[in-house]
Amino acid sequence: MITRKADQKKSVRENMRGGNEYVQFTHLSAELPEKARIFDILTLIPGASIGYHVHEGETELFYFMEGTGRVQDDDQVVEISAGDCMATFSGHGHSVENTGNTDLKLLAVIIKD
Amino acid sequence: MITRKADQKKSVRENMRGGNEYVQFTHLSAELPEKARIFDILTLIPGASIGYHVHEGETELFYFMEGTGRVQDDDQVVEISAGDCMATFSGHGHSVENTGNTDLKLLAVIIKD
Repeated sequence: MITRKADQKKSVRENMRGGNEYVQFTHLSAELPEKARIFDILTLIPGASIGYHVHEGETELFYFMEGTGRVQDDDQVVEISAGDCMATFSGHGHSVENTGNTDLKLLAVIIKD
Repeated sequence: MITRKADQKKSVRENMRGGNEYVQFTHLSAELPEKARIFDILTLIPGASIGYHVHEGETELFYFMEGTGRVQDDDQVVEISAGDCMATFSGHGHSVENTGNTDLKLLAVIIKD
């Protein structure tokens, strides 16, 4: 099934996981398989962040599409930019912060164990 | 875990599923969870295609990042462009063809049932 760009639903989460500002979600597919929880583009304006949190029973994959940021990957803090990828497996944690002057856009998919 | 753009492995498949030319794969993450089979960017040069094939026991999600193309979605043929999404669930089939003058780039993830 095709979901056109114009038909993709959007939503906003304020102070996500204790982070700053808000995150805009674009839900790419109108339907997902049972083992997927999201297949979304997340847009963080400059200064926006998603606070540190741990995933249990699922893995989240991030593909950074545009912008620059800083992530925490368990206990490591790393600068990221477009083209980089981050995998957060079950039992591991992460946070994301837009440290640039432009939007930070990433594609996120969550796959249940 | 972070996989830097510069460290992402690439591979090429010629005449994929009976299609034209070749498809370049960029394997975004050095490791995947058990329920994921690929998390890749696929690049099709103008004229390249992936022939029609059916997925069984898994779902493939495509997010079209750049370019224009034509897909077959079961028995429907549809023109797609950047921002569109395609979900091919277990028991369903698809094909992809780059009909434009520039590369067609899509992000693909396969999630096992």
